Amino acid sequence: MAEEPVKLGILGLGRWAKVLADAIQRSSRLRIVNSFSRSEESRQEFSLKYRCRVAKSYTDLLNDPEVEGVIITTPNDAHREPILEAAAKGIDVYVDKPIAHTMGDALIIDRACRDAGVVLSVGHSARRLKGNRKIREIIDQGGIGKLVMAEFNFSNDRSLELTPDKWRWYRDKSPGGPLIQLAVHHTDTLNYLFGPVKRVTAMAKRLYTPAEIEDVTMTLLEMESGQLCYIGSNWASQGTFFTHVYGMDANLYFTVDFNFWSQSDVVDLHSRLEIQPRGSSAHKTIALEQGDMLREQLEEFADCIRKKKKPEVGGSEAITALAVVYAAIRSAETGKAVELREVIEG
Amino acid sequence: MAEEPVKLGILGLGRWAKVLADAIQRSSRLRIVNSFSRSEESRQEFSLKYRCRVAKSYTDLLNDPEVEGVIITTPNDAHREPILEAAAKGIDVYVDKPIAHTMGDALIIDRACRDAGVVLSVGHSARRLKGNRKIREIIDQGGIGKLVMAEFNFSNDRSLELTPDKWRWYRDKSPGGPLIQLAVHHTDTLNYLFGPVKRVTAMAKRLYTPAEIEDVTMTLLEMESGQLCYIGSNWASQGTFFTHVYGMDANLYFTVDFNFWSQSDVVDLHSRLEIQPRGSSAHKTIALEQGDMLREQLEEFADCIRKKKKPEVGGSEAITALAVVYAAIRSAETGKAVELREVIEG
Repeated sequence: MAEEPVKLGILGLGRWAKVLADAIQRSSRLRIVNSFSRSEESRQEFSLKYRCRVAKSYTDLLNDPEVEGVIITTPNDAHREPILEAAAKGIDVYVDKPIAHTMGDALIIDRACRDAGVVLSVGHSARRLKGNRKIREIIDQGGIGKLVMAEFNFSNDRSLELTPDKWRWYRDKSPGGPLIQLAVHHTDTLNYLFGPVKRVTAMAKRLYTPAEIEDVTMTLLEMESGQLCYIGSNWASQGTFFTHVYGMDANLYFTVDFNFWSQSDVVDLHSRLEIQPRGSSAHKTIALEQGDMLREQLEEFADCIRKKKKPEVGGSEAITALAVVYAAIRSAETGKAVELREVIEG
Repeated sequence: MAEEPVKLGILGLGRWAKVLADAIQRSSRLRIVNSFSRSEESRQEFSLKYRCRVAKSYTDLLNDPEVEGVIITTPNDAHREPILEAAAKGIDVYVDKPIAHTMGDALIIDRACRDAGVVLSVGHSARRLKGNRKIREIIDQGGIGKLVMAEFNFSNDRSLELTPDKWRWYRDKSPGGPLIQLAVHHTDTLNYLFGPVKRVTAMAKRLYTPAEIEDVTMTLLEMESGQLCYIGSNWASQGTFFTHVYGMDANLYFTVDFNFWSQSDVVDLHSRLEIQPRGSSAHKTIALEQGDMLREQLEEFADCIRKKKKPEVGGSEAITALAVVYAAIRSAETGKAVELREVIEG
């Protein structure tokens, strides 16, 4: 294991870039060597803090012979161009969720990476929370019996602070508001836990945010497996993250303390998984170990680069997660149920 | 307070009749004096246990000069006839929720009681749970700020035990399955907490029950006030009852231990109300006193009889609660959002 760490460039040096850089510092298997952002101030601050080079341009970053892969944390509507440029140069890509802000961009990004034969890893880390891993294990072992339904929620009040200089303010850059920013975590996780979505119906309202986007959303999903799911996601109330899974033999209740969401080295310790067994209302705690969803996902990216492996969440999984968001947006607009197939096929 | 107890007859002597009779025994303000059921065995057992007379027929029960009001716990599709007969004789009526199994019957029942000037009290007791009363008080005092959204669930696995000799087996007698049996509790409570519903969308599936009815349902509701609500209700997983209310300043989480659902003299002690204040993920417990939702509602019925008062949940409130159920059934069938007005106006 005296292998050299995988050397990475990073584009977009805002808040989430730092969260990812912190996760990389916890690993011996990756290292950030070069960085770029349009903001001079962000470049200065980031390169000092993480002791990496600053490139003159994104193109220069990609041309750095040491750079083996690139991490992209630009706004959702600015994923396509840098990914296409990286793919054209044969550089492997890690991009934060959602894969893109439109289905069109998502399909172009996925196709370009496949055609170029580069890795595309999409940062859907929520499925790596120890609670979600444990839920999957319990379901696979038959621990809750046949699946009946599931409920998810991911909400916080961040839309209340939005200002017109933020990209999340705008419908064209952040369509669906909390659907594409928060609920998309669960749309990937429910695919991981229960398989593909068949049909979606949703409601979305703009109640309190000063921004253009909706701030209160609710989505119902019929799974191909038959069971029903609900995802609640708003951007106007206190931080909430939960998953309830109802089986014929037992129910599971998983909650995450949102205040630790971006501290993936301790978030599992601030989570709780409980089981309600048959015939009882008691909730028994199921022990969770502490993982590190962001570090683990980035280490998987390093593995994918070195061993040309497929990541757990690549283009097609991320397109599926985004398609559920788009089905919800379309259903909320039309008041009709939307088949997932209609969204994926255009 | 040395007032004579109000003397009641009771029709339909099954499980829920006994739950109500137990509640009446805890009160000095009501007394069951006469009873009737089509089953000879039920009549024997009930009259022995609750030391009341047995009438030769329902008509004889109503003709009993001592009977001031009647409690009706017949199946949902057998509410109309006995209520119309009672109204025609000027006897006040308490009927268990839902008011009827169809909107048509509900409207006829309400009209008949109004025309006859008799009390119609409908057993939507869930709003009287101390947790729901406290939630209302906290909202009214501005304790959670502006309303964002709410989530409700009421589920249990009772559809799995259904057999063709039970009326709940059949779509025409129990349309919507858990929607009309369980979710209807919440459709009244959300009206109580947040006011009228504007629009409904829903999904309903038949997954595991041997019966004709659906056993897994999810409903989204847009309220006239703007906020969104969700009601999950299935008849195939372990007993669950909760209400989450999300405000801009704080969230409320209310859960009831379903095993104590029919023991209304202790159910509040087996409930939990928690508040998650602004900026925190901590849930702080809010103390609840022990009430007795069924005894209190029946005592209100006694008051209404003696003082010709209007009950908290009369015909129009119960029709509203049923209309939400019917909007959900129609939406699940058509895949389209349904305006509540369409259902109420036919």
